[in-house]
Amino acid sequence: MIVKLPDGRTFEYAGSAKLKDVLVTTDRQLLKTVIGAKLNGELVDFHRVLPADAKVELITIDSPEARPIYRHSLSHVLAQAVKRLIPNAKLAIGPAIDDGFYYDFDVEKPFTPEDIEKLEAEMKKVIKENYPFERSEVSRDEAHKLLSEMKESYKLELLEELPPGETISFYKDGDFVDLCRGPHILGTGQVKHFKLLNVAGAYWRGDEKNKMLQRIYGTAFYTKEELEQFLHMREEAKKRDHRKLGKDLGLFYFSEHIGPGLPLFTPKGEIVRYLMESYVREKQTRYGYQHVWTGHMVKEELYRRSGHYDNYVDSMFPPMIDEGIAFRLKPMNCPSHMMLYKEMGTHSYRDLPLRFAEFATLYRYEKSGELSGLTRVRAVTQDDCHIFCTPDQIQSEFSLALNLVREVLETYQFKDYRVRLSLRGSTGKYVADDEKWGKATTALKAALDANRVKYEPVEGEAAFYGPKADFLATDVLGREWQLSTIQVDFIQPARLGLEYIAEDGRTHTPVVLHRAVTGSTERFLGVLIEHYAGAFPVWLSPVQAVVLPITDKHAPYAGKVLEQLKSVGVRAELDGSNNTLNYRIRHAQLQKTPYMLVVGDREQQNEQVAVRLRTGEDLGAKGVAEFVHFIQNKIADKELI
Amino acid sequence: MIVKLPDGRTFEYAGSAKLKDVLVTTDRQLLKTVIGAKLNGELVDFHRVLPADAKVELITIDSPEARPIYRHSLSHVLAQAVKRLIPNAKLAIGPAIDDGFYYDFDVEKPFTPEDIEKLEAEMKKVIKENYPFERSEVSRDEAHKLLSEMKESYKLELLEELPPGETISFYKDGDFVDLCRGPHILGTGQVKHFKLLNVAGAYWRGDEKNKMLQRIYGTAFYTKEELEQFLHMREEAKKRDHRKLGKDLGLFYFSEHIGPGLPLFTPKGEIVRYLMESYVREKQTRYGYQHVWTGHMVKEELYRRSGHYDNYVDSMFPPMIDEGIAFRLKPMNCPSHMMLYKEMGTHSYRDLPLRFAEFATLYRYEKSGELSGLTRVRAVTQDDCHIFCTPDQIQSEFSLALNLVREVLETYQFKDYRVRLSLRGSTGKYVADDEKWGKATTALKAALDANRVKYEPVEGEAAFYGPKADFLATDVLGREWQLSTIQVDFIQPARLGLEYIAEDGRTHTPVVLHRAVTGSTERFLGVLIEHYAGAFPVWLSPVQAVVLPITDKHAPYAGKVLEQLKSVGVRAELDGSNNTLNYRIRHAQLQKTPYMLVVGDREQQNEQVAVRLRTGEDLGAKGVAEFVHFIQNKIADKELI
Repeated sequence: MIVKLPDGRTFEYAGSAKLKDVLVTTDRQLLKTVIGAKLNGELVDFHRVLPADAKVELITIDSPEARPIYRHSLSHVLAQAVKRLIPNAKLAIGPAIDDGFYYDFDVEKPFTPEDIEKLEAEMKKVIKENYPFERSEVSRDEAHKLLSEMKESYKLELLEELPPGETISFYKDGDFVDLCRGPHILGTGQVKHFKLLNVAGAYWRGDEKNKMLQRIYGTAFYTKEELEQFLHMREEAKKRDHRKLGKDLGLFYFSEHIGPGLPLFTPKGEIVRYLMESYVREKQTRYGYQHVWTGHMVKEELYRRSGHYDNYVDSMFPPMIDEGIAFRLKPMNCPSHMMLYKEMGTHSYRDLPLRFAEFATLYRYEKSGELSGLTRVRAVTQDDCHIFCTPDQIQSEFSLALNLVREVLETYQFKDYRVRLSLRGSTGKYVADDEKWGKATTALKAALDANRVKYEPVEGEAAFYGPKADFLATDVLGREWQLSTIQVDFIQPARLGLEYIAEDGRTHTPVVLHRAVTGSTERFLGVLIEHYAGAFPVWLSPVQAVVLPITDKHAPYAGKVLEQLKSVGVRAELDGSNNTLNYRIRHAQLQKTPYMLVVGDREQQNEQVAVRLRTGEDLGAKGVAEFVHFIQNKIADKELI
Repeated sequence: MIVKLPDGRTFEYAGSAKLKDVLVTTDRQLLKTVIGAKLNGELVDFHRVLPADAKVELITIDSPEARPIYRHSLSHVLAQAVKRLIPNAKLAIGPAIDDGFYYDFDVEKPFTPEDIEKLEAEMKKVIKENYPFERSEVSRDEAHKLLSEMKESYKLELLEELPPGETISFYKDGDFVDLCRGPHILGTGQVKHFKLLNVAGAYWRGDEKNKMLQRIYGTAFYTKEELEQFLHMREEAKKRDHRKLGKDLGLFYFSEHIGPGLPLFTPKGEIVRYLMESYVREKQTRYGYQHVWTGHMVKEELYRRSGHYDNYVDSMFPPMIDEGIAFRLKPMNCPSHMMLYKEMGTHSYRDLPLRFAEFATLYRYEKSGELSGLTRVRAVTQDDCHIFCTPDQIQSEFSLALNLVREVLETYQFKDYRVRLSLRGSTGKYVADDEKWGKATTALKAALDANRVKYEPVEGEAAFYGPKADFLATDVLGREWQLSTIQVDFIQPARLGLEYIAEDGRTHTPVVLHRAVTGSTERFLGVLIEHYAGAFPVWLSPVQAVVLPITDKHAPYAGKVLEQLKSVGVRAELDGSNNTLNYRIRHAQLQKTPYMLVVGDREQQNEQVAVRLRTGEDLGAKGVAEFVHFIQNKIADKELI
């Protein structure tokens, strides 16, 4: 067989063999970093007998495909430790997840922090003892007998559901054995750095009718640095949690009397969302977009005609029935914009493209259990746009939208983003019109290429009305957020009877591009709070400067400074409370106010302010007019501080 | 008896007599202008026998109380003419209304414009024939016999409904007799100037289950000038009808697929509403108001607690039921703003007043038959504010709101307004707390007096939660619109458990002022369109300037001018269509575009534009930079043109 090493080199191995044996007999050093291998694109572990003519590619720990294997193996180690300490604990499931792994246990009492410490210590032992992960394939009856003896009732339930003909395998490491499909790492000794993170209740199979189990989350990396970096980021993400910061900074609240997922924005929160929307509005106007207004409720019948009812009804709020006619809260703008297009009369190709943008609050019937702060809400104010154009204009309109998206993301300091191009694929769920799908897909790809944007095609994930490009932007913590989207639609315009008179004098159906820049104001604000850790750029800060008189006698001068700032539109406040100056500075820092303007005798005498940044930096004394000029520039240039 | 003349003089008349006889025997000249009289505040006509010791006050035609008598008499003349021309027409009702009178007839076929002309001619005859209006009082049986003979089935129905003991009277003028309570003028000859206006279908008793009758509308004045002025205004109002202008100017549309009373705003309409809201927002910010955001749906339960459910449920859209919990589209902001106030934590008297403003679209369940253009819609975007204050702050906050309202109305060139102060009165419908009602009423009156605003108290018309001041502004055509409102509320804050810590260290309930400046964006835009006849001030005009190249060869220069205007934010367009210059100028005028910038050889050579106003005025050539400066000043100063 031909074995490809991680560095690209290859070597040959004669005959059929287990991967483990190949490595042991060729280069034992590889056992330290190789986690598995790929055979014809499929992951295989150390126990798989590879055919003599196989071409295999070794997977090392730094490959993204290795992580789930590595981490899932650790979940076995966790379960092993639990069984050692609590022998009657019953095992449920223990998969790898995005950031690590978990294992669900049925135990008599929830795990305490002390339990977690003990478990970590026990896991370290297991790792030190360096048991190989040994695979055994058994018959269904044998498996049943084994699990019954072990009294693993959850595992028995899983076993019963395995389809007939499925290979049934167990993995054993030392004193622990678990029903498991694999693959696994070579042995527990391969695990280098791990950490148990937290415990949470979790219903068996996620169904609240079932028993609540105890889920232990953990993560693992190969290097200490990676683990530390991860834990640091996790700590940072906790500190930046927009739900916590939103409260600390007094930006928004939820009220049980209003309803779940329906945020209330305070004056400080509202000004941020207003500025966000105003900024996009201004940019859109410059890009030749026009704004429209279409309200919040629509006859349900329209969504039946547009196709949304069939594809989307579960995401709509229950109807309001007015004299037998059902109305819905608007879950999307497209049919409304299309009706406006129609009401406006006959359109000529000369009038196209028409770009209708709207900041409308849409309502999505998210399950209340899935709501989370601002990033998963029921009220979604989209920066939405529908571009009515001819088929020939798809590419140029897509490019225009792309550039707008890039410019806006850059302003918010999102430097990295990637594009997921969702295409039709081969599933039967899309209305067939090969030519249109083909043309639209080609136009999108051409526009992305022309703008040198890398993209990853995903087959079978398009919207019901056409292909789409979703933008995933990376925040400061390296997390990806799906924000912008540009979608091609050649289904709805025809269904709703849209027309334009083309150059040939005949009636044609326009194409519509659906486009959102930041997605929704609510969600993007949640993302921004975490991205900036609450320290908004000056132009977005609810309070841009706070004036701090050292003592009461400086209050009148402080008031004068405040008025000067306010008169030019700077959002300034005065903190003349009885607290010490240090306390007031600390408070302003916690409120992430960009500038603190301390005024005492000297400042008063010289008509100055002593400027401190929320970062702690001291800019020294500046004349009031000089500071006004300074902050106005910061605002105009949308600088962070 | 003592008779007071319209000019204030009095004379005495010995003994009891009919008013008619009093006038005939004292001063026949008075018969030309006296329409009736007032006896102890009650209107009496010429046939009433007045007691010898009565003090009566003569009413002349220029008194507002005289008009309904005068006009109702004319409805008899109309019915008389109809009966002469169509003897088998049946009479329904014929009251005086605000701007004139009408009479409903059951006739075989609708009246044609020719019929109306003939009727007017016949009415003139009746007037010339100068029949006195003779009153006769009859028994119920006699009335029944008479109406049966006349085959007036509708009148018989009305007769049956008269309560027992009620005096039954007929009025006769010449060959016409009608069941009527009166009063009437002396005779048909007293009528000077009238006009039949239009015909409309009207169900008997306004109930669509009944027969559709034909309603003829008319009006009457005492002088020719008044009638002509009225007809001119009516014509003008028709031309200004915002429903017609809204379509002509392409500002908004209604779609049967969206729903009744739910307007869709085009880019041109949206920019106007955006500018209106931005202007109020900016003013509010300057006045120390803060903006909040609270969405569009709320748990119904909150409206039960606030008291709105009991007082207002008929105006709410039907509920959306989410897992057994009813949600409502928000019909008002107050409970949401109050919940936000609560969620924000403990408030000290030092933090008050807090002024929460929001441009939220509210939804009102208006009956679809009562909807009309933008002035009666189901989507109502209020420029709403709730001011949380201490009882001592009511007066100063009311004054502040009052000044804001005045400033805004002035900007929109509403020069006249009056205030209706709606008070509790003696009805039992208000929650009792005499002291609070008294204090609030006193504070409102004091604020109005201090600001020298005249007001008219109306007892029994307050909101359920407190007294209120409504502002009725007069438009260019002299019509009154209720726009702004300031209301005191001391019921909801207590019901919803709002608190603040007062100076005494104890917990108190704040007072809330409800305040709207222009009312709602939709309705005010409808009013503005009519107020300005579609010719918005420059700052509000959807298109502020249109560049008109004389020929194709001037198009590149026109494009350059366009870009210069756009680059400084002027909303400019270029009309380079193939139509003649005159046609394009006419089109821009019809679109009420403030400035037309004609460019030809000379303008191109001198880097100028030839400026024409939509009024037809010619401002001559201006340098492009000069015009930019000129229009920017017009915009900044919010000038009409």
